[in-house]
Amino acid sequence: MKEVPIETGEKLWGPPERVVLVTSVDEAGKANIIAVGWAMRANMSPPVFAIGLGRKSQSCTNIAASGEFVFALPGTGLAREVMYCGTHSGREVDKFAETGLTALAASVVKAPLIDECLANFECRVTASQEIGDHRVFFGEVLAAWQGEAEEPHLLVVGTGSGYEQVHEEGAFRLGAVRP
Amino acid sequence: MKEVPIETGEKLWGPPERVVLVTSVDEAGKANIIAVGWAMRANMSPPVFAIGLGRKSQSCTNIAASGEFVFALPGTGLAREVMYCGTHSGREVDKFAETGLTALAASVVKAPLIDECLANFECRVTASQEIGDHRVFFGEVLAAWQGEAEEPHLLVVGTGSGYEQVHEEGAFRLGAVRP
Repeated sequence: MKEVPIETGEKLWGPPERVVLVTSVDEAGKANIIAVGWAMRANMSPPVFAIGLGRKSQSCTNIAASGEFVFALPGTGLAREVMYCGTHSGREVDKFAETGLTALAASVVKAPLIDECLANFECRVTASQEIGDHRVFFGEVLAAWQGEAEEPHLLVVGTGSGYEQVHEEGAFRLGAVRP
Repeated sequence: MKEVPIETGEKLWGPPERVVLVTSVDEAGKANIIAVGWAMRANMSPPVFAIGLGRKSQSCTNIAASGEFVFALPGTGLAREVMYCGTHSGREVDKFAETGLTALAASVVKAPLIDECLANFECRVTASQEIGDHRVFFGEVLAAWQGEAEEPHLLVVGTGSGYEQVHEEGAFRLGAVRP
Protein backbone atom coordinates (compact mmCIF):
# COMPACT_ATOMS: atom_id res chain seq x y z
CA MET A 1 0.00 0.00 0.00
CA LYS A 2 1.64 3.26 -1.10
CA GLU A 3 0.38 6.82 -0.79
CA VAL A 4 -0.41 8.36 -4.18
CA PRO A 5 -1.71 11.75 -5.34
CA ILE A 6 -5.46 12.04 -4.81
CA GLU A 7 -5.93 12.52 -8.57
CA THR A 8 -4.26 9.15 -9.16
CA GLY A 9 -6.13 7.34 -6.43
CA GLU A 10 -9.60 8.56 -7.32
CA LYS A 11 -9.34 6.91 -10.76
CA LEU A 12 -9.43 3.53 -8.99
CA TRP A 13 -13.14 4.17 -8.19
CA GLY A 14 -14.08 2.94 -11.64
CA PRO A 15 -16.95 1.34 -13.55
CA PRO A 16 -19.45 -0.21 -13.62
CA GLU A 17 -21.62 2.70 -12.46
CA ARG A 18 -25.38 2.59 -12.82
CA VAL A 19 -26.83 5.54 -14.69
CA VAL A 20 -30.36 6.89 -14.24
CA LEU A 21 -32.52 9.54 -15.86
CA VAL A 22 -34.13 12.15 -13.59
CA THR A 23 -37.04 14.31 -14.69
CA SER A 24 -38.20 17.59 -13.14
CA VAL A 25 -40.32 20.60 -14.06
CA ASP A 26 -39.64 24.31 -13.78
CA GLU A 27 -42.11 26.81 -12.33
CA ALA A 28 -43.85 27.17 -15.70
CA GLY A 29 -44.30 23.39 -15.87
CA LYS A 30 -41.66 22.76 -18.56
CA ALA A 31 -40.09 19.34 -18.14
CA ASN A 32 -36.38 18.53 -18.25
CA ILE A 33 -34.32 15.32 -18.13
CA ILE A 34 -30.80 14.81 -16.78
CA ALA A 35 -28.58 11.72 -16.83
CA VAL A 36 -27.14 10.97 -13.39
CA GLY A 37 -24.27 8.63 -12.53
CA TRP A 38 -24.12 9.60 -8.84
CA ALA A 39 -27.14 7.78 -7.47
CA MET A 40 -27.67 5.38 -4.61
CA ARG A 41 -30.21 3.98 -2.21
CA ALA A 42 -30.28 5.95 1.07
CA ASN A 43 -33.01 4.26 3.13
CA MET A 44 -34.83 0.95 2.97
CA SER A 45 -38.27 1.65 4.45
CA PRO A 46 -39.58 3.99 3.25
CA PRO A 47 -37.41 3.69 0.13
CA VAL A 48 -35.27 6.77 -0.50
CA PHE A 49 -32.91 7.41 -3.43
CA ALA A 50 -30.07 9.96 -3.32
CA ILE A 51 -28.92 11.75 -6.48
CA GLY A 52 -25.98 14.14 -6.90
CA LEU A 53 -26.41 16.99 -9.42
CA GLY A 54 -24.25 19.93 -10.49
CA ARG A 55 -25.64 23.05 -8.84
CA LYS A 56 -25.60 25.00 -12.11
CA SER A 57 -27.87 22.50 -13.87
CA GLN A 58 -31.47 23.31 -14.81
CA SER A 59 -32.51 20.10 -13.05
CA CYS A 60 -30.93 21.23 -9.77
CA THR A 61 -32.83 24.53 -10.00
CA ASN A 62 -36.08 22.72 -10.82
CA ILE A 63 -35.81 20.14 -8.04
CA ALA A 64 -34.76 22.69 -5.41
CA ALA A 65 -37.84 24.79 -6.26
CA SER A 66 -40.43 22.01 -6.78
CA GLY A 67 -39.22 19.52 -4.17
CA GLU A 68 -39.98 16.65 -6.53
CA PHE A 69 -38.39 14.48 -9.19
CA VAL A 70 -38.87 11.24 -11.07
CA PHE A 71 -36.05 8.69 -10.85
CA ALA A 72 -36.17 6.55 -14.03
CA LEU A 73 -34.14 3.46 -14.94
CA PRO A 74 -33.01 3.33 -18.58
CA GLY A 75 -32.29 0.07 -20.39
CA THR A 76 -29.58 -0.51 -22.97
CA GLY A 77 -31.92 0.62 -25.77
CA LEU A 78 -31.73 4.19 -24.46
CA ALA A 79 -27.95 4.66 -24.57
CA ARG A 80 -28.04 7.48 -27.15
CA GLU A 81 -30.84 9.29 -25.35
CA VAL A 82 -29.02 9.01 -22.01
CA MET A 83 -25.81 10.32 -23.55
CA TYR A 84 -27.72 13.25 -25.05
CA CYS A 85 -29.38 14.07 -21.73
CA GLY A 86 -26.01 13.88 -19.96
CA THR A 87 -24.15 16.15 -22.39
CA HIS A 88 -26.71 18.92 -23.05
CA SER A 89 -28.24 21.54 -20.79
CA GLY A 90 -31.97 21.95 -20.24
CA ARG A 91 -31.26 25.69 -20.15
CA GLU A 92 -30.60 25.50 -23.89
CA VAL A 93 -32.58 22.59 -25.36
CA ASP A 94 -35.87 20.74 -24.83
CA LYS A 95 -34.54 17.26 -24.11
CA PHE A 96 -37.90 15.49 -24.46
CA ALA A 97 -38.31 17.04 -27.92
CA GLU A 98 -34.71 16.40 -28.99
CA THR A 99 -34.55 12.77 -27.82
CA GLY A 100 -38.10 11.79 -28.73
CA LEU A 101 -38.59 10.26 -25.27
CA THR A 102 -42.26 10.14 -24.24
CA ALA A 103 -43.39 12.06 -21.16
CA LEU A 104 -46.31 10.46 -19.29
CA ALA A 105 -48.25 12.04 -16.44
CA ALA A 106 -47.18 10.75 -13.03
CA SER A 107 -49.77 9.98 -10.36
CA VAL A 108 -48.46 12.16 -7.48
CA VAL A 109 -45.71 14.53 -8.68
CA LYS A 110 -45.73 17.06 -11.52
CA ALA A 111 -42.48 15.77 -13.04
CA PRO A 112 -43.24 13.32 -15.87
CA LEU A 113 -42.53 9.61 -16.17
CA ILE A 114 -40.46 8.44 -19.15
CA ASP A 115 -42.46 5.80 -21.02
CA GLU A 116 -39.44 4.06 -22.59
CA CYS A 117 -37.68 3.39 -19.25
CA LEU A 118 -37.60 0.07 -17.39
CA ALA A 119 -39.07 1.70 -14.28
CA ASN A 120 -40.01 5.12 -12.92
CA PHE A 121 -40.13 6.21 -9.27
CA GLU A 122 -42.03 9.33 -8.21
CA CYS A 123 -40.00 11.00 -5.48
CA ARG A 124 -40.58 13.83 -3.00
CA VAL A 125 -37.46 15.56 -1.67
CA THR A 126 -37.17 15.06 2.09
CA ALA A 127 -33.66 16.53 2.47
CA SER A 128 -30.85 17.97 0.41
CA GLN A 129 -27.22 18.76 1.04
CA GLU A 130 -24.88 21.13 -0.76
CA ILE A 131 -21.48 19.50 -1.39
CA GLY A 132 -18.89 21.61 -3.22
CA ASP A 133 -20.43 22.63 -6.54
CA HIS A 134 -22.98 19.81 -6.36
CA ARG A 135 -26.21 19.24 -4.45
CA VAL A 136 -27.39 15.84 -3.26
CA PHE A 137 -31.18 15.41 -3.12
CA PHE A 138 -32.83 12.68 -1.07
CA GLY A 139 -36.14 11.60 -2.61
CA GLU A 140 -38.68 9.40 -0.85
CA VAL A 141 -40.45 7.08 -3.28
CA LEU A 142 -44.20 7.85 -3.37
CA ALA A 143 -45.17 5.70 -6.34
CA ALA A 144 -43.49 3.16 -8.64
CA TRP A 145 -44.06 2.23 -12.28
CA GLN A 146 -42.84 -0.75 -14.28
CA GLY A 147 -42.21 -0.52 -18.04
CA GLU A 148 -42.60 -3.15 -20.71
CA ALA A 149 -38.98 -3.36 -21.93
CA GLU A 150 -36.92 -6.27 -20.60
CA GLU A 151 -33.48 -4.99 -21.48
CA PRO A 152 -30.55 -4.92 -19.08
CA HIS A 153 -30.19 -1.76 -17.01
CA LEU A 154 -27.84 0.72 -18.69
CA LEU A 155 -24.47 1.21 -17.01
CA VAL A 156 -21.38 3.34 -17.40
CA VAL A 157 -19.00 0.53 -18.37
CA GLY A 158 -15.27 -0.11 -18.52
CA THR A 159 -13.20 -1.32 -21.43
CA GLY A 160 -12.99 -5.01 -20.44
CA SER A 161 -14.40 -7.81 -22.56
CA GLY A 162 -17.05 -8.50 -19.92
CA TYR A 163 -19.02 -5.47 -21.03
CA GLU A 164 -21.29 -5.09 -24.02
CA GLN A 165 -20.66 -1.48 -25.01
CA VAL A 166 -23.62 0.04 -26.84
CA HIS A 167 -22.60 3.69 -27.13
CA GLU A 168 -19.44 5.74 -26.71
CA GLU A 169 -18.91 9.50 -26.77
CA GLY A 170 -15.78 11.25 -25.61
CA ALA A 171 -14.70 9.68 -22.32
CA PHE A 172 -18.10 8.06 -21.69
CA ARG A 173 -18.95 4.46 -22.45
CA LEU A 174 -22.48 3.13 -21.93
CA GLY A 175 -23.52 -0.49 -22.03
CA ALA A 176 -24.29 -3.52 -19.91
CA VAL A 177 -22.67 -6.56 -18.41
CA ARG A 178 -22.27 -9.08 -21.28
CA PRO A 179 -24.91 -11.83 -20.93
CA MET B 1 -45.80 1.66 -18.19
CA LYS B 2 -48.04 0.43 -15.36
CA GLU B 3 -48.16 1.54 -11.75
CA VAL B 4 -47.01 -1.20 -9.37
CA PRO B 5 -46.66 -1.47 -5.58
CA ILE B 6 -43.51 0.30 -4.37
CA GLU B 7 -42.19 -3.01 -3.00
CA THR B 8 -42.42 -4.49 -6.51
CA GLY B 9 -40.90 -1.49 -8.25
CA GLU B 10 -37.94 -1.07 -5.96
CA LYS B 11 -36.67 -4.56 -6.84
CA LEU B 12 -35.97 -3.24 -10.36
CA TRP B 13 -33.06 -1.22 -8.89
CA GLY B 14 -30.83 -4.25 -9.05
CA PRO B 15 -27.17 -5.27 -9.34
CA PRO B 16 -24.38 -4.67 -10.08
CA GLU B 17 -23.72 -2.56 -7.01
CA ARG B 18 -20.19 -1.63 -5.98
CA VAL B 19 -19.34 -2.58 -2.42
CA VAL B 20 -16.74 -0.84 -0.26
CA LEU B 21 -15.22 -1.33 3.17
CA VAL B 22 -15.28 1.61 5.59
CA THR B 23 -13.08 1.77 8.67
CA SER B 24 -13.55 3.97 11.72
CA VAL B 25 -12.38 4.15 15.33
CA ASP B 26 -14.31 4.60 18.57
CA GLU B 27 -13.32 7.06 21.29
CA ALA B 28 -10.93 4.52 22.83
CA GLY B 29 -9.23 4.07 19.44
CA LYS B 30 -10.66 0.61 18.70
CA ALA B 31 -11.05 0.12 14.96
CA ASN B 32 -14.08 -1.30 13.17
CA ILE B 33 -14.89 -2.23 9.55
CA ILE B 34 -18.26 -2.18 7.83
CA ALA B 35 -19.22 -3.31 4.31
CA VAL B 36 -21.23 -0.65 2.48
CA GLY B 37 -23.28 -1.06 -0.70
CA TRP B 38 -24.77 2.44 -0.61
CA ALA B 39 -21.83 4.53 -1.74
CA MET B 40 -21.35 7.13 -4.45
CA ARG B 41 -19.27 10.05 -5.56
CA ALA B 42 -20.79 13.37 -4.37
CA ASN B 43 -18.34 16.02 -5.62
CA MET B 44 -15.57 16.10 -8.19
CA SER B 45 -13.12 18.71 -6.88
CA PRO B 46 -12.37 18.29 -4.06
CA PRO B 47 -13.36 14.62 -4.30
CA VAL B 48 -16.12 13.64 -1.88
CA PHE B 49 -17.64 10.20 -1.31
CA ALA B 50 -21.08 9.64 0.24
CA ILE B 51 -21.83 6.49 2.27
CA GLY B 52 -25.15 5.39 3.77
CA LEU B 53 -25.01 3.50 7.08
CA GLY B 54 -27.62 2.11 9.44
CA ARG B 55 -27.88 4.45 12.42
CA LYS B 56 -27.65 1.59 14.90
CA SER B 57 -24.29 0.42 13.59
CA GLN B 58 -21.05 0.82 15.54
CA SER B 59 -19.53 2.45 12.46
CA CYS B 60 -22.25 5.12 12.38
CA THR B 61 -21.57 5.90 16.07
CA ASN B 62 -17.81 6.01 15.45
CA ILE B 63 -17.96 8.25 12.38
CA ALA B 64 -20.50 10.64 13.92
CA ALA B 65 -18.18 11.09 16.94
CA SER B 66 -14.79 11.16 15.16
CA GLY B 67 -15.78 12.94 11.95
CA GLU B 68 -13.48 10.65 9.96
CA PHE B 69 -13.45 7.39 8.05
CA VAL B 70 -11.41 5.42 5.54
CA PHE B 71 -13.17 4.42 2.30
CA ALA B 72 -11.46 1.26 1.02
CA LEU B 73 -12.00 -0.62 -2.26
CA PRO B 74 -11.95 -4.42 -1.93
CA GLY B 75 -11.02 -6.71 -4.81
CA THR B 76 -12.54 -10.08 -5.57
CA GLY B 77 -10.04 -11.81 -3.28
CA LEU B 78 -11.75 -10.25 -0.26
CA ALA B 79 -15.29 -11.54 -0.86
CA ARG B 80 -15.42 -13.63 2.35
CA GLU B 81 -14.00 -10.82 4.46
CA VAL B 82 -16.48 -8.32 2.98
CA MET B 83 -19.36 -10.69 3.62
CA TYR B 84 -18.21 -11.13 7.22
CA CYS B 85 -17.93 -7.37 7.76
CA GLY B 86 -21.40 -6.86 6.28
CA THR B 87 -23.13 -9.50 8.38
CA HIS B 88 -21.57 -8.96 11.82
CA SER B 89 -21.69 -6.06 14.24
CA GLY B 90 -18.64 -4.24 15.55
CA ARG B 91 -20.54 -4.00 18.85
CA GLU B 92 -20.02 -7.75 19.26
CA VAL B 93 -16.86 -8.79 17.42
CA ASP B 94 -13.45 -7.40 16.49
CA LYS B 95 -13.67 -7.55 12.70
CA PHE B 96 -9.96 -6.96 12.07
CA ALA B 97 -9.15 -9.90 14.36
CA GLU B 98 -11.88 -12.15 12.97
CA THR B 99 -11.13 -11.52 9.27
CA GLY B 100 -7.37 -11.30 9.54
CA LEU B 101 -7.37 -8.06 7.54
CA THR B 102 -4.31 -5.91 8.24
CA ALA B 103 -4.78 -2.42 9.71
CA LEU B 104 -2.15 0.12 8.64
CA ALA B 105 -1.73 3.61 10.06
CA ALA B 106 -3.21 6.30 7.83
CA SER B 107 -1.37 9.59 7.29
CA VAL B 108 -4.08 12.08 8.36
CA VAL B 109 -7.01 10.31 10.05
CA LYS B 110 -7.05 7.93 13.03
CA ALA B 111 -9.12 5.28 11.22
CA PRO B 112 -6.82 2.63 9.73
CA LEU B 113 -6.16 1.70 6.11
CA ILE B 114 -6.79 -1.92 5.06
CA ASP B 115 -3.58 -3.29 3.55
CA GLU B 116 -5.29 -5.96 1.40
CA CYS B 117 -7.59 -3.49 -0.43
CA LEU B 118 -7.06 -2.14 -3.96
CA ALA B 119 -7.16 1.44 -2.66
CA ASN B 120 -7.84 3.41 0.52
CA PHE B 121 -9.11 6.99 0.81
CA GLU B 122 -8.74 8.95 4.04
CA CYS B 123 -11.90 11.02 4.46
CA ARG B 124 -13.00 13.85 6.76
CA VAL B 125 -16.75 14.25 7.22
CA THR B 126 -17.89 17.63 5.88
CA ALA B 127 -21.64 16.99 6.19
CA SER B 128 -24.09 14.28 7.18
CA GLN B 129 -27.80 13.75 6.77
CA GLU B 130 -30.19 11.55 8.73
CA ILE B 131 -32.52 9.65 6.36
CA GLY B 132 -35.03 7.32 8.01
CA ASP B 133 -33.06 4.82 10.09
CA HIS B 134 -29.89 5.53 8.12
CA ARG B 135 -27.32 8.31 8.09
CA VAL B 136 -25.46 9.46 4.99
CA PHE B 137 -21.95 10.79 5.63
CA PHE B 138 -20.12 12.96 3.10
CA GLY B 139 -16.36 12.49 3.33
CA GLU B 140 -13.84 14.74 1.62
CA VAL B 141 -10.79 12.79 0.46
CA LEU B 142 -7.64 14.03 2.24
CA ALA B 143 -5.22 11.33 1.13
CA ALA B 144 -5.24 8.35 -1.24
CA TRP B 145 -3.40 5.04 -1.18
CA GLN B 146 -2.95 2.42 -3.89
CA GLY B 147 -2.53 -1.26 -3.06
CA GLU B 148 -0.57 -3.95 -4.85
CA ALA B 149 -3.41 -6.31 -5.82
CA GLU B 150 -4.67 -6.05 -9.40
CA GLU B 151 -7.95 -7.89 -8.98
CA PRO B 152 -11.29 -6.61 -10.26
CA HIS B 153 -13.25 -4.45 -7.82
CA LEU B 154 -15.72 -6.53 -5.80
CA LEU B 155 -19.40 -6.02 -6.64
CA VAL B 156 -22.77 -7.18 -5.43
CA VAL B 157 -23.70 -9.18 -8.52
CA GLY B 158 -26.81 -10.63 -10.13
CA THR B 159 -27.44 -14.19 -11.26
CA GLY B 160 -26.69 -13.72 -14.97
CA SER B 161 -23.89 -15.54 -16.78
CA GLY B 162 -22.01 -12.26 -17.21
CA TYR B 163 -20.93 -12.33 -13.59
CA GLU B 164 -18.19 -14.32 -11.96
CA GLN B 165 -19.67 -15.07 -8.57
CA VAL B 166 -17.01 -15.63 -5.92
CA HIS B 167 -19.06 -15.86 -2.72
CA GLU B 168 -22.72 -16.27 -1.77
CA GLU B 169 -24.41 -16.09 1.60
CA GLY B 170 -28.14 -15.84 2.12
CA ALA B 171 -29.52 -13.30 -0.34
CA PHE B 172 -26.10 -11.77 -1.03
CA ARG B 173 -23.90 -12.61 -4.01
CA LEU B 174 -20.45 -11.08 -4.39
CA GLY B 175 -18.25 -11.22 -7.44
CA ALA B 176 -17.17 -9.30 -10.51
CA VAL B 177 -18.02 -8.78 -14.13
CA ARG B 178 -16.73 -11.87 -16.00
CA PRO B 179 -13.54 -10.97 -17.90
